[in-house]
Amino acid sequence: MRSTMMKTPLLISRILQHGSTVHGDSEVATWTGEGARRTSYAEVGRQAARLAHALRGLGVTGDERVGTLMWNNAEHLIAYLAVPSMGAVLHTLNLRLFPEQLIYIANHAEDRVVIVDSTLIPLLAGVLPHLSTIRHIVVVGGGDTSKLVKDGVEVHAWDEILQGRPDTFDWPEVDEDDAAALCYTSGTTGNPKGVAYSHRSIYLHSMEVCMAESFGLGPQMRNLVIVPMFHAMAWGLPYAALMSGAQLVMPDRFLQAAPLARMIEVEKPSFAGAVPTIFTDLLAYLDANPTDVSSLQEVVIGGSACPPALMHAYAERYDIQVIHAWGMTEMSPLGSIARAPFGVDGPEAWAYRYTQGRVPAGVEARIVGPTGEAMPSDGKAVGELEVRGPWITAQYIGEDGPDPDKFDNGWLRTGDVGTLTPNGYLTLTDRAKDVIKSGGEWISSVDLENALMAHPAVLEACVVGVPDDKWGERPLATVVLKEGAAADAETLREFLLTKVARWQLPERWSFIEAVPKTSVGKFDKKRVRSDYAGGSLEVVQING
Amino acid sequence: MRSTMMKTPLLISRILQHGSTVHGDSEVATWTGEGARRTSYAEVGRQAARLAHALRGLGVTGDERVGTLMWNNAEHLIAYLAVPSMGAVLHTLNLRLFPEQLIYIANHAEDRVVIVDSTLIPLLAGVLPHLSTIRHIVVVGGGDTSKLVKDGVEVHAWDEILQGRPDTFDWPEVDEDDAAALCYTSGTTGNPKGVAYSHRSIYLHSMEVCMAESFGLGPQMRNLVIVPMFHAMAWGLPYAALMSGAQLVMPDRFLQAAPLARMIEVEKPSFAGAVPTIFTDLLAYLDANPTDVSSLQEVVIGGSACPPALMHAYAERYDIQVIHAWGMTEMSPLGSIARAPFGVDGPEAWAYRYTQGRVPAGVEARIVGPTGEAMPSDGKAVGELEVRGPWITAQYIGEDGPDPDKFDNGWLRTGDVGTLTPNGYLTLTDRAKDVIKSGGEWISSVDLENALMAHPAVLEACVVGVPDDKWGERPLATVVLKEGAAADAETLREFLLTKVARWQLPERWSFIEAVPKTSVGKFDKKRVRSDYAGGSLEVVQING
Repeated sequence: MRSTMMKTPLLISRILQHGSTVHGDSEVATWTGEGARRTSYAEVGRQAARLAHALRGLGVTGDERVGTLMWNNAEHLIAYLAVPSMGAVLHTLNLRLFPEQLIYIANHAEDRVVIVDSTLIPLLAGVLPHLSTIRHIVVVGGGDTSKLVKDGVEVHAWDEILQGRPDTFDWPEVDEDDAAALCYTSGTTGNPKGVAYSHRSIYLHSMEVCMAESFGLGPQMRNLVIVPMFHAMAWGLPYAALMSGAQLVMPDRFLQAAPLARMIEVEKPSFAGAVPTIFTDLLAYLDANPTDVSSLQEVVIGGSACPPALMHAYAERYDIQVIHAWGMTEMSPLGSIARAPFGVDGPEAWAYRYTQGRVPAGVEARIVGPTGEAMPSDGKAVGELEVRGPWITAQYIGEDGPDPDKFDNGWLRTGDVGTLTPNGYLTLTDRAKDVIKSGGEWISSVDLENALMAHPAVLEACVVGVPDDKWGERPLATVVLKEGAAADAETLREFLLTKVARWQLPERWSFIEAVPKTSVGKFDKKRVRSDYAGGSLEVVQING
Repeated sequence: MRSTMMKTPLLISRILQHGSTVHGDSEVATWTGEGARRTSYAEVGRQAARLAHALRGLGVTGDERVGTLMWNNAEHLIAYLAVPSMGAVLHTLNLRLFPEQLIYIANHAEDRVVIVDSTLIPLLAGVLPHLSTIRHIVVVGGGDTSKLVKDGVEVHAWDEILQGRPDTFDWPEVDEDDAAALCYTSGTTGNPKGVAYSHRSIYLHSMEVCMAESFGLGPQMRNLVIVPMFHAMAWGLPYAALMSGAQLVMPDRFLQAAPLARMIEVEKPSFAGAVPTIFTDLLAYLDANPTDVSSLQEVVIGGSACPPALMHAYAERYDIQVIHAWGMTEMSPLGSIARAPFGVDGPEAWAYRYTQGRVPAGVEARIVGPTGEAMPSDGKAVGELEVRGPWITAQYIGEDGPDPDKFDNGWLRTGDVGTLTPNGYLTLTDRAKDVIKSGGEWISSVDLENALMAHPAVLEACVVGVPDDKWGERPLATVVLKEGAAADAETLREFLLTKVARWQLPERWSFIEAVPKTSVGKFDKKRVRSDYAGGSLEVVQING
């Protein structure tokens, strides 16, 4: 029996329409270094219409791709809304990729237009000669565009091409399963792989972001969006803000601890989203430079595991609750949120909050063993996490079908290893490729890192598996000490003994200046392993 | 460009699966008259599987219809989840319909099975001889079933047919656009008209109910669901509870003020949903019988306009915020929620809270004039409200297509007249058919009713248009005085003068014992008009 309901498709244009009318008074503030420039969602709606007319004027038709090489700011928000609403496809270019990766993804997506922040002109100019499909560059903000020269490519100023355009647009009724936006993963092996989010997936994900169990976005919230808009759609926060009326504070390129602290003091966000490294830096800054951050109630941290010590420090010293979340570009990205079950308090609540979190409605999760068998969700069985749901990708762009290394009969293989409780809490201990296989047992590199980072002298610790004649693999601990602090390998081994089993203790130790990071701020373990293999690390060996 | 996302359909079975695992510890409490019996969502999940196996055992296949003639209780919740999840279609039979309407809808929907609360056996027995498609009756609770006799109809006990069934079920992957549940409107003219909600529409509506802007359901909430589950799916609260982990308190048949007050005192709900008449009665009870209702923070009132005096009384005397909502069976039913914009306080906030509310993401609204032209959303232009969205019906069951009296090129004509502000607040003054057309001007019957009900002596007031030789139509005010209170027509006219224009003052007044109500508790204006026409009302005439 067919239902009688309307087949109204779930479209970005409807989020835009809703946000710019019902929540027309809500504000987006963009940091300028000194203070913020401000605009309303009503004005964002008018600007989005103007941008769509301007892009049509540049010849953008159908599902052509429009790239953005931009920080988090009002113009990027306008592009987020206008490009998919007009039926074109937004491609957020990750400015932290290596130039050859940037060239690869722009060409692979066949970007026709690139909108670029003027401060990023040098980056674009460097790769422009190799961009084969681009026809137009739209520059936001004043700046020297003389380096943006390529045959067949026209350069335009944002303000000029928007000027005088109508402030409404007859948004087309596209298919909700059509692509709305592309994001490429920043995988460290091989070429980046692209995901094409649909209007439907973005719409549903935005609704989830507004649900109380996840971020609970609503008009009462003022969101500091530190997570970049070129990284997994900034966790869906921009779209969810328009959907819910939540206000936005955009840091633009000012992502260092000092300007972020100032931004919080002045713009008074109630909520922020970021990767842990930024909040590690911010904590050190706040401790040294007292700043009024009392507006901030909740910070969602994702992108990599958050050290429990960081969560406690914010709660105890600043009354800021750090909420752990986990996801992937392939998942739009929301996969789980670490709120304790209602009614659970104290240490038990913290135990839940240390996990990657609980899957929200719309994400199904299971644990699969080494031979592909589903394992019990009992909080004990360890296996690879697989996920399924309407905002999870079924394959990568341009591939004939799902790659069996990445997909398992309709489920996404996350490449993460861990456990799942009956009530949906994930604990992910390692990337499948980072688990240390020592004499038939698995050692979690992340457990060792967290244990080390709880030591007062340790700023950061990165543990990787390295070849060992006797055990196959053994852990190597690379440690960054806090400024002025001292601790040697013996001391840290002793400290670890209170937290992990003796057989898991690393024999190899290296004290380094900084842990190498990937373009999105994660520990670059591949690099640490290759530094070790190449002999460029100074290693102390201690046998227990 | 097609997206790469999974085509995971939005199904009730996924809400069931999520709620019974991730929120397996959440509780549904069903009132028994003395106290509550309790079960968990995990157990609800197991019982739903058993019910599905039992229904298959009774021969239910494909999209056959399973009716429920039940109060709000755990078994009704189990049926809500099991029937659509197994691919069958739930039909909630409105026990307040007239018998001939009940017969009509059960036959029109071709209900194969009816699940009935034992306390409702007499009602079912009365109509059973006329139910032509029913083959099985499942009785919940003990009771005399000897009256349930009809050739070809088998009677079963719920407990017996569920006993020993497996507690898991391999829920089929149906199409999300397939019908999941039917609800018939209780229109006062002609036969009831049916709406077939889809899995998709129910899933999306449930997400909306969990968003902060609407009801914000989450695990921290304990919901007293007074609005009947046979009425517009109890506003989606049961499904949203499973989706979000919010707990449920179900009043069963105990809907009078005294047991409701006791239920609130004992079960400590934080949230309730009901029609205004029930909360009018409850207020009078609480004023006379002090009861601890301090757990209750928010009550959503819908189904008909809520008198501002009632909202103020709850806020001032009990610290309970009454939130106005508006919707229709045809809209799943959520159409708007009257929360003030963030940051607006005091009298200005109340002005927003008196409206029908603001449309949530997913509901598009417009105002259409008498000749079908769209009118500005300026808060001033008065016209008929039309709505569109993914949880709004496109037509009625069994009709060849949209009836142009009810639908307008893809929009639902609500039959409500009012205004719409630029930021999405609706103010509905009248049903299109209840507007009083007096000498070329429109008089709002609802404005007059609200003004009258603000008088301390008035319990209820119902105003209708009646024929007038000079003006075409003029208002007739029917008034119910509070027990022991006294006021005459002159006094009330004087009082009205402070609130409405002189030319709108009623000349005809009738003091009555009670306002006649429809099956869902709304003022039955058709009946008032026919009582007047038939001469059965005692009317005082005053000319101003």
